[in-house]
Amino acid sequence: MHFSSETRRDDGVVERDFTIGEIPGVLWTPEAAPTPVPLVLLGHPGGLRTMRPRLAARARSATRDGLAAATIELPGSGERPRGAKVDAVRAELRQALQTGEPVTPEIVDRLVLPLVEQAVPEWQTCLDALLELPEIGGPVGLSGGVISIGVRLAVVEPRIAAAVLFAGSFVPRVVLEEARRVTVPVHVLLQWDDEGNDRQVALDLFDALGSPEKSLYANLGGHTGVPAFAGEEAARFLARHLR
Amino acid sequence: MHFSSETRRDDGVVERDFTIGEIPGVLWTPEAAPTPVPLVLLGHPGGLRTMRPRLAARARSATRDGLAAATIELPGSGERPRGAKVDAVRAELRQALQTGEPVTPEIVDRLVLPLVEQAVPEWQTCLDALLELPEIGGPVGLSGGVISIGVRLAVVEPRIAAAVLFAGSFVPRVVLEEARRVTVPVHVLLQWDDEGNDRQVALDLFDALGSPEKSLYANLGGHTGVPAFAGEEAARFLARHLR
Repeated sequence: MHFSSETRRDDGVVERDFTIGEIPGVLWTPEAAPTPVPLVLLGHPGGLRTMRPRLAARARSATRDGLAAATIELPGSGERPRGAKVDAVRAELRQALQTGEPVTPEIVDRLVLPLVEQAVPEWQTCLDALLELPEIGGPVGLSGGVISIGVRLAVVEPRIAAAVLFAGSFVPRVVLEEARRVTVPVHVLLQWDDEGNDRQVALDLFDALGSPEKSLYANLGGHTGVPAFAGEEAARFLARHLR
Repeated sequence: MHFSSETRRDDGVVERDFTIGEIPGVLWTPEAAPTPVPLVLLGHPGGLRTMRPRLAARARSATRDGLAAATIELPGSGERPRGAKVDAVRAELRQALQTGEPVTPEIVDRLVLPLVEQAVPEWQTCLDALLELPEIGGPVGLSGGVISIGVRLAVVEPRIAAAVLFAGSFVPRVVLEEARRVTVPVHVLLQWDDEGNDRQVALDLFDALGSPEKSLYANLGGHTGVPAFAGEEAARFLARHLR
């Protein structure tokens, strides 16, 4: 893990850019923390540069609650090399959505599964490195991003203690099955009029999650329209389980 | 409106029992409020005496946020006279549930509609009286209880500014239609494993609500298992819209 920049902001947050191997990432820590703090992994749909202002705002919620927050770039996104195979399937998906063709489970498997299979171990490598920093302790929470990555990570990574998931419907069949094996507390955000996701599939996925404590917070509006109060409740969920 | 008792509690809340005509009720006000405060009408399934501890806890959330809270007994519940007709339909419903027969829309209409038609004007009479008290101002919020009463009240009563609804599926057809005419912000609490209500009907009712701001907070567990954090979020919703 290599830190390339460090900014101490007015609001008492230290923001550091880093790379792990070739993967860029950002770490936000509360400056004044006297002891190692819990960590929130911030997921996103890919494209760190574009997403950065929104990620910084979500990180601010975490640091205000005395938690650190970190994110890394997704495989094939931002400045990371694209994969010809994934690019081709992505184009196929885009075309299907534009022409109104059904997005078959086969397309979802072919598009999303390789991403999940590459991203999950990357998050784990990132987690290994972050937990070695003296200022970061545990437990670890997940927040948002591609729901299939979140579900898989919650199943395979025992250091994850709680997860905020952003509801989506492009979930490979194997991950839908894995959802039943999630046992940590989950808080699912669903946008009721999400133009890019099928509501019923998202509800079925919520129903499938095996966690004894699970909540669904659905709000009117499109994919990017999560209201501020729902973001705040998700932050409270993480603080409750990580502190 | 006649007050029959007044208790000043240690937590700075004044609790008063009252009657309006033959209808008993309870009013909770924050003692230290310098100006008239907004009001929350607390709904419940009927049976004020049994429900009172839980209602008092919900009232405490309101008074902590600087709001008054009030409730009245439902028609045919608690110490109010029973109606032979409603009693007969209620017995019919109980039998249908016990034998696993489908509860038809006809049964729901016959059971719930008379209750709605009597309860809504009673709540309005209660509201008239409460708003004449110097310590109560506006706006007025609704919180929980029989969802059909809540929906009808939100449609016909312009003084209602926001509503927390407790999801349910025994909703008369005319009220399901009326749901589209609700325009105030709504926050719906749904118990995912509610043994007494059909989840899909509850989701359809949420979908039908006409409000441009609406949220659904669904939690794992049975009818009476609303987690404390979900109750707190409902209280924050009311405080946000009434203060």
